[in-house]
Amino acid sequence: MIIVLKNGTSMEEVAKITNMLEKFDVKVNPIVGESTTILGLVGDTSSLDIGSLYFNENVEKIMKVQEPYKKSNRKMHPQDTVININGVEIGGKRLTIMAGPCSVEGEEQIVGIAKYVKEQGARILRGGAWKPRTSPYAFQGLKADGLKLLNKAKTQTQMPIISEITNPAHIEMFMDMVDIFQVGARNMQNFEILKELGKTNKPVLIKRGFANTYEELLMSAEYVMSGGNEEVILCERGIRTSENYTRNTLDISAIPALKKLSHLPVIVDPSHAAGLHWMVEPLSMAAIAAGADGLILEVHNDPKNALCDGAQSLTYKSFKRTMEKLRLIANAVDREI
Amino acid sequence: MIIVLKNGTSMEEVAKITNMLEKFDVKVNPIVGESTTILGLVGDTSSLDIGSLYFNENVEKIMKVQEPYKKSNRKMHPQDTVININGVEIGGKRLTIMAGPCSVEGEEQIVGIAKYVKEQGARILRGGAWKPRTSPYAFQGLKADGLKLLNKAKTQTQMPIISEITNPAHIEMFMDMVDIFQVGARNMQNFEILKELGKTNKPVLIKRGFANTYEELLMSAEYVMSGGNEEVILCERGIRTSENYTRNTLDISAIPALKKLSHLPVIVDPSHAAGLHWMVEPLSMAAIAAGADGLILEVHNDPKNALCDGAQSLTYKSFKRTMEKLRLIANAVDREI
Amino acid sequence: MIIVLKNGTSMEEVAKITNMLEKFDVKVNPIVGESTTILGLVGDTSSLDIGSLYFNENVEKIMKVQEPYKKSNRKMHPQDTVININGVEIGGKRLTIMAGPCSVEGEEQIVGIAKYVKEQGARILRGGAWKPRTSPYAFQGLKADGLKLLNKAKTQTQMPIISEITNPAHIEMFMDMVDIFQVGARNMQNFEILKELGKTNKPVLIKRGFANTYEELLMSAEYVMSGGNEEVILCERGIRTSENYTRNTLDISAIPALKKLSHLPVIVDPSHAAGLHWMVEPLSMAAIAAGADGLILEVHNDPKNALCDGAQSLTYKSFKRTMEKLRLIANAVDREI
Amino acid sequence: MIIVLKNGTSMEEVAKITNMLEKFDVKVNPIVGESTTILGLVGDTSSLDIGSLYFNENVEKIMKVQEPYKKSNRKMHPQDTVININGVEIGGKRLTIMAGPCSVEGEEQIVGIAKYVKEQGARILRGGAWKPRTSPYAFQGLKADGLKLLNKAKTQTQMPIISEITNPAHIEMFMDMVDIFQVGARNMQNFEILKELGKTNKPVLIKRGFANTYEELLMSAEYVMSGGNEEVILCERGIRTSENYTRNTLDISAIPALKKLSHLPVIVDPSHAAGLHWMVEPLSMAAIAAGADGLILEVHNDPKNALCDGAQSLTYKSFKRTMEKLRLIANAVDREI
Repeated sequence: MIIVLKNGTSMEEVAKITNMLEKFDVKVNPIVGESTTILGLVGDTSSLDIGSLYFNENVEKIMKVQEPYKKSNRKMHPQDTVININGVEIGGKRLTIMAGPCSVEGEEQIVGIAKYVKEQGARILRGGAWKPRTSPYAFQGLKADGLKLLNKAKTQTQMPIISEITNPAHIEMFMDMVDIFQVGARNMQNFEILKELGKTNKPVLIKRGFANTYEELLMSAEYVMSGGNEEVILCERGIRTSENYTRNTLDISAIPALKKLSHLPVIVDPSHAAGLHWMVEPLSMAAIAAGADGLILEVHNDPKNALCDGAQSLTYKSFKRTMEKLRLIANAVDREI
Repeated sequence: MIIVLKNGTSMEEVAKITNMLEKFDVKVNPIVGESTTILGLVGDTSSLDIGSLYFNENVEKIMKVQEPYKKSNRKMHPQDTVININGVEIGGKRLTIMAGPCSVEGEEQIVGIAKYVKEQGARILRGGAWKPRTSPYAFQGLKADGLKLLNKAKTQTQMPIISEITNPAHIEMFMDMVDIFQVGARNMQNFEILKELGKTNKPVLIKRGFANTYEELLMSAEYVMSGGNEEVILCERGIRTSENYTRNTLDISAIPALKKLSHLPVIVDPSHAAGLHWMVEPLSMAAIAAGADGLILEVHNDPKNALCDGAQSLTYKSFKRTMEKLRLIANAVDREI
Repeated sequence: MIIVLKNGTSMEEVAKITNMLEKFDVKVNPIVGESTTILGLVGDTSSLDIGSLYFNENVEKIMKVQEPYKKSNRKMHPQDTVININGVEIGGKRLTIMAGPCSVEGEEQIVGIAKYVKEQGARILRGGAWKPRTSPYAFQGLKADGLKLLNKAKTQTQMPIISEITNPAHIEMFMDMVDIFQVGARNMQNFEILKELGKTNKPVLIKRGFANTYEELLMSAEYVMSGGNEEVILCERGIRTSENYTRNTLDISAIPALKKLSHLPVIVDPSHAAGLHWMVEPLSMAAIAAGADGLILEVHNDPKNALCDGAQSLTYKSFKRTMEKLRLIANAVDREI
Repeated sequence: MIIVLKNGTSMEEVAKITNMLEKFDVKVNPIVGESTTILGLVGDTSSLDIGSLYFNENVEKIMKVQEPYKKSNRKMHPQDTVININGVEIGGKRLTIMAGPCSVEGEEQIVGIAKYVKEQGARILRGGAWKPRTSPYAFQGLKADGLKLLNKAKTQTQMPIISEITNPAHIEMFMDMVDIFQVGARNMQNFEILKELGKTNKPVLIKRGFANTYEELLMSAEYVMSGGNEEVILCERGIRTSENYTRNTLDISAIPALKKLSHLPVIVDPSHAAGLHWMVEPLSMAAIAAGADGLILEVHNDPKNALCDGAQSLTYKSFKRTMEKLRLIANAVDREI
C-alpha cells in the first residue's frame, strides 16, 4: 500500500504517521521527494482501514498495490482450474455449451429442448425455476415444480443441470435438484447467498453484475471460495452503458482479463447480454474466439410463445446453425465442442 | 403499446398480426404511412409478451407507451405520500434527517452518537448490523447484537431505528427490532426480500441500485406495494459512471424526476454516493435545494477508528456545521428541519 | 412519430393539437384509449421540432419511429458498400488489415514498419502525424513532416495511407498526402471537419466517440454522405464504462448492430479500445469472428521506446503471431486476409 | 510515480530497471516486500513514457502520484481565480447568471430576450451562432449574422456576450464579436481550437465533455493556460450514464470536486444536462447550493417555436420565478445575484 502525503507535511508529522502505522505490524518506507512525501507499506495491510486513514489531515491519497482477492487469484494458482461434473468438464480444452430455455414451462417443453440441445452438442441443461423479474406482475417461474421437471429431463438425457438460486433458504432443496448453482447478475453481491454456497460442495456459476468490475466479480468468487468451496465458474453477461440498442453491452475484454487475473473458468452469456436473438450467433463466435471456456445460451422450442425473454431465445434451427459455426471457430482456436 | 412494422409489410400480414393481437383482448389501430405501418394498441397490454412479438418477422420494433408501475405512480395517487413513524413524518413539510454510524460497534458508541445527532436535529437513527461488504475478509457487522444495541439507543432517545436487511430469513427478527427496513443498493432487485417485505406493515426504504433506472427503482417499490405494504421510501445514493474521483455519482436529477413520477417520499444518501467526507455537506445542501424530503447521513464519534467506511463519515463537528447550513437551505425552499 | 398525450386531455384539446400538427403537412391519426390518447403521425416529420412540442401542456412524451439517418441506412441501400482504394477493397470478402505505428517518428521507422506489416498481410498503412493528446505537455506528432514520411513509405510499399485529420484547415494538405481521412473518436462530432470532408472525394474512416451511440455514429457518417462523399468507413474503438481495467470497453455488439443498420464497412480498433498490448490479439480474433470487415492495429518496431502509446502497440513478433491466428479465424468465417 | 514489479523479480532485474530509470534523471527508491517489490520514483517523471515501461517484462503496474495538470491546479494557486469582464465578475462572491436563447434567431428575438434576462438579474448574454447539431438536416445556426445580432443586443444592454466556437478558423472573427469563447462539450478535446484560444486574451468557458473526467477537463484548461491565456472557466453540463430519463446526468459532485482541485471558476449548465425545461429550476438551485459560481441558462421568448432545443428552454415566466428562488438559495449560502 502507498500513502501519498500532502505537500508540505513536516518530517515530524511523517514520523507520527509512521509510528501509528507500525502499530499495525506493517513496515513503513518513506520516500521523500521535493514537494511530496510518500510512504510505501510492506507487510499485511489488510488490518488497516483505508477509510479511516483519510481522516489523517496529512494524507492526500492512498493507493493499493495488491489485489484483494486471494483464492481466485492466478498468482496463487497458476494452472487453469478445470471443474468436472459427472464427466462434463468446464475449463478444459473442450468447450462447455450450456443450453435450455429461459424458464422451465412444462415437461414436454423441457424434455424436448434437453434432447434437442444435447443432440447438437450442448453438455449442460439450463432452465430457470425461480425467475427474478423486474416487474412483480410478470411470470415468476414454476419454482419447485420447475426443478422437478428439470430432473425429468436429466433422467432422460444424463445432462447435468444448472438453475438460478435467489434465496439462501432454497439452497437445501437445490442441493438435491441441481448440479451447478447459478447466481444471477442481480445477486452477484448477495453475500448471504454466496456465504451459504461456500459451505456446499457443488460448483457455483457467478454472473457478473451489470455494473460490477472484474475485481468485484472475483471478490464474490472469493466469498464462495473462502467458505471452502473452490469450484467457482465466472460468467460475463454484459454491462450497462450509455448504448441501449442492445439490452446490455457484452464486455468481450472480460474474457482475456479474467483469464489473466484468475485461474477460474470463464463462461459467456450472449443471450442476456444482447437481448436480441439475431445477435446471439455473432457474439457467441466472438466469445469463443476471445478465449471463453464455454457459453450459456437460451434455446426455446417455440420462442414466439415463450413465457419470458422470447426476444433473446434461439430457435432450434438457429441453435443448430450457431453450433455449426461455433465448431469452426473452436477448431480455429484449437478447442473442440 | 406501439408496434412498428417493417417497411414493405403487406396488408395481408398486417391483418394476420392484428388478428393475433386481438386474441389478447387489445384493440389494434393500424396507421398506414407511405413506407411504414404502425399498430397502436389500446387496452390492457400487460398480458402480451414483448419479447415474443419480436419473433414475428414483420415486427421492426415495439414501443411502450405507459409506465409499468401502478401503485407507486403519481398518476394514480396525485398527492404526496407522508409516512408517519411514531410522530416522525417522512414526506411532509418538515425534512427528515436520518443519522448514525455506518456500523453499530458497541453500546457506548451507538448511544452516544444517537444522543448527539438527536440534539442536532436528526429524527431517525441509522446503524448497520448486517453489513454487505465487497470483501469476505472485511468486518461483517455485529448482526443480532447490533440490533439490540440500536434498541438500547432507541430506549434512551425515542428515535425510530432504520437498519439494513440482507436476508429474507431475518425479517421476523427485524420486525421486533427496527422501525424502518432498509434495502441496500445491492439488494434493490433482491425480489425475494422485497416480496416478503410486502407482507409486513413497516415502512421500507429502498436504495437505488448503482446501475438501476428510475423505472426499475419504482418497479422494486411496486414489489413491496403490490404485496400490500404501501409505505415505501425511495432513496437516491449515486450511480456508477466513468468518473471515479467520487465513489459513485450522485444523480441529483433523480430527486425532481422521482417526485414527478411518483408520490413516494425521496431521501438522499450523500455519504455513500461520494465516499468522501468533505463532500457530504455540499451534496446534502444540493439535495435539499433540489427538493429531497430528507437525508440519510453517516456520523461517527471517532471516524479515524471506525470499523467501516470512515472515509465518508461526518465527525460530530462537521455534522453540527452541516445541520446549521441545511437549516438555511431548508428555509430558502420553504421547508424546515 | 408518436405523440402520447397526458391522461385526461379533452377531445377539444386533441383537435387543437391535430390542427396545429397538420399545418406541418403531416397526417395525424388519433388512437383513443381508456385513459390515454396517442397521436400517430404519418408523413415527413423532419420539419417538426420535437423539443417545442414538449411545451404543449397536453403532451406527455414523443417517440420517434423512424431512424434519422438516410444515406447510411441499410434500408435505403440493402447491399454492402465496398470501397476500393487503388485495388485495396474495404467491405468485401477479403478482410482489410490497417497497421502501423501510433505516431510517425522518422523515415527509417515508418519505412521499416510499412515493409514489415505489408509482408505479414496488412494492406493499408496507418500512422499519426497530428496527435490529439490529453496533455499539452505530451508529444504532439511530427505534423506535415509526418505526412511526408508516410509518403516515402508509400512509395516503397505501394500501401495506401490513412492518417488522422484534426483541423478543417489541414484538409487541403491531406488531400495530396493521404488515401483515407481518419476522424478520431474525439472528433466524431466535430461537424466542421465532417462537413468539409463531405466535399472531398476520398474515403473517410470515422471512429465512434467513446460515449456515442450507434445512431450518433451513423449521423456523423450522414454529415459526410449528405455533402456528397459516400465513401465512409465506420470504426468501433471502445466506449467508456465503469470498468477501468481496460482503457475503454470494446463494444463487440457494435459490429453486428452496425452491419444490420447500415451498409457501410465496419472496422475495429482493438489497440485503442483495450490500451493493453497483450489483449489486442484476442480482441482482434473476436472482432473478425463477429463479422468485422477489418482491423486497424498499432505495430511498432520498438514499443519500449515509442513516443506515444507504447503500452498498446504490438511488436513485430506479436503482430506476426496475431496475423497467423487471424487467418485461421478468417477461414472459419469464410473470409480471407 | 510508483512502479510495482511482478512477484519474483530478481534483485538483479531490479538493479537493471533502476539503472534504466535513472538515465531519465529520476531517483529510484526500491521498497522490497515479501513477495512484491515496488519502486518509488522521485523527481520530474514527465519525460518517462508510461506506456513503454509496460513493455518491461518485470513491470506489473504503474501508478501516478501527482496530478498532470499544473496551471489549473489549486496547489499551485491556492486563491480562487476571479475573472473580470468589463466589470462583470466570474468566480467572486456575486454569482454570474448567463442567459439567453439556444440559437440567435433574429434581431427582435435576441434584443428582447437580452433586455428581459438583464432585468431579472442575468449579467452575461448567451446565444448560439454556430450550432453543432447531431443531424446534418437540422438548423445549423445563423453563423456570422448571429454574432452581429448578438452585438446589437450588447449595444442596447451592455451585457458581455458568450457564444460557441466550433472551428479554429473562426477565432479571428469571434475576437471582435464575443467577450467569452464557449467551447462546447463535443469540442472539449478539440485541441486545435484549445491551442489557438491559448494565444488569445479573452476568457474561455470550457464545457465538460459528456464522458470526460474532471482530470481531462482540467487538462483541456491546461491547453489554454499553457498557451498563455489563464482566464479559463470550467462548466459542468452533465455526463452520459445508463439513466436516460434525462438527456444527461448532471454531476453535482463536479462542483465541490473542481473547486477543490482547481482555482478556476465553475459554472453549471442545467438546461443541456437535463434536456427538460421543468427540471432546470431544481437543478439550478442545487448547483448554487453545492457551491457553483454561476449558471448558464437557456431562456426563450417563445420556446414552442424555438428553432432548436425548445424542450429545455425556460420561458420568461419560468426564468423570472427561477431567479427569485435562486436569490433565496444564494442568500442561504452567503452569495448574491
